[in-house]
Amino acid sequence: MTEVVILGAGNVAFHLFKAFSKAKNIKVTQVYNHRDESLEYFSKFTETSTEIRNLKSGDFYILALKDDVIPEIAQDLKSKNGIVLHTSGAVSLNSLECLTNLGVFYPLQTFSKNKAVDFSEIPVCIEANSIENLERIKALASAITRDIREINSEQRKALHLAAVFVNNFSNHLYSIGAEICKTNQVDFSILKPLIKETASKMESLSPKDAQTGPALRNDQKTIETHLKLLSKKDKDIYSLLTQSIQDFHGKKL
Amino acid sequence: MTEVVILGAGNVAFHLFKAFSKAKNIKVTQVYNHRDESLEYFSKFTETSTEIRNLKSGDFYILALKDDVIPEIAQDLKSKNGIVLHTSGAVSLNSLECLTNLGVFYPLQTFSKNKAVDFSEIPVCIEANSIENLERIKALASAITRDIREINSEQRKALHLAAVFVNNFSNHLYSIGAEICKTNQVDFSILKPLIKETASKMESLSPKDAQTGPALRNDQKTIETHLKLLSKKDKDIYSLLTQSIQDFHGKKL
Repeated sequence: MTEVVILGAGNVAFHLFKAFSKAKNIKVTQVYNHRDESLEYFSKFTETSTEIRNLKSGDFYILALKDDVIPEIAQDLKSKNGIVLHTSGAVSLNSLECLTNLGVFYPLQTFSKNKAVDFSEIPVCIEANSIENLERIKALASAITRDIREINSEQRKALHLAAVFVNNFSNHLYSIGAEICKTNQVDFSILKPLIKETASKMESLSPKDAQTGPALRNDQKTIETHLKLLSKKDKDIYSLLTQSIQDFHGKKL
Repeated sequence: MTEVVILGAGNVAFHLFKAFSKAKNIKVTQVYNHRDESLEYFSKFTETSTEIRNLKSGDFYILALKDDVIPEIAQDLKSKNGIVLHTSGAVSLNSLECLTNLGVFYPLQTFSKNKAVDFSEIPVCIEANSIENLERIKALASAITRDIREINSEQRKALHLAAVFVNNFSNHLYSIGAEICKTNQVDFSILKPLIKETASKMESLSPKDAQTGPALRNDQKTIETHLKLLSKKDKDIYSLLTQSIQDFHGKKL
């Protein structure tokens, strides 16, 4: 049985805990967090602690923590024999260099507590300080996902940035769409099939081939009508993205 | 049998033709386009014509045409008894006012010829110049979709604008993500589960509740790291969207 200790109680910790709890031959033996209140959910299923010095020994320590506390928590884990992994897209492998056995376990997905995910389809980006550790991390990952990728720290940082564009920023464009609906007394649900299809097209088309709309067609009349309907701030976003589409597709403004 | 004549041979015409062809009690009796080459596909299944004066009589004339030619084509249809419908998000009902029986049939979806769609889930926004015509358009729409909405011209214009944000602009953010992957020798497929989940979250969460990421957390360190990795143009997009997220969620920059 592989024993896993999870440090952190946020969205990533929550979904990793659920995925590992379902996996064969893996047991989450403890969840640590500095705030006791955040441990309530986990305490129903396993041991919990608010004290680093009370951490149990385990095969893996997974730091699902805020980026800036990772190096200092790593310092506290120097005496541990297990492999210490962080789950961050933006933090390099080197930030754990005070340790002997270390690596990265970055699930490239957006997690919200009240939205279940199928972990088996989530790409997990792994990195390690030795071939042996890489193999052990790969075995751990294979218990919960079919999609394991060896990604170095530079690539991971770039992926994290790409994820901000395709996830955080796209989601914000949905918020702008929802606001436009609200202003015009239209139910936001009407946009949901379009949102779904926009994403679904990526299964069979490249984003370049899937691009449509007034910017691509250089349909100035529609672009001007749209700009008149928008607030100053949303107008800036509309103009900048329209220009970016036209630059990308080699259209003249 | 309801007889439908389609004018246009683009993506909307193509997918409407396929949906109507599958529907019970509806027959597409003719497809018109000014360019003969574009009619090749349709000519395998029905009559085609490049001449407006050769249009057959029908119950409905569906103008799946570029926005700016809709009013002039409407002029050519004055002698027809059927209901003339346009399929544009941006053109008002009034643009057909030279006609007796007129309306709008706007499917709120993104169409590409080489991507099949399930038309039954596509919201069709309808509008008409009389209650009788509205009922007849509703009956036509119900043959191909379960989601029919009465939407006036102002609302439709706003929806078209919202669609640009959630569809065209989101898709362009996928293009930027794909470019970042390419630069860093990472396969774009790694982002596909994230893209899918971002859209899928809208089934159970509002976009406001689904928002995550460095902008929302006001994680300045990550934001600065990301800005350093970007080209001038993408940096402007990153900054503007980050600020917009923070304004929308009431965070201080």
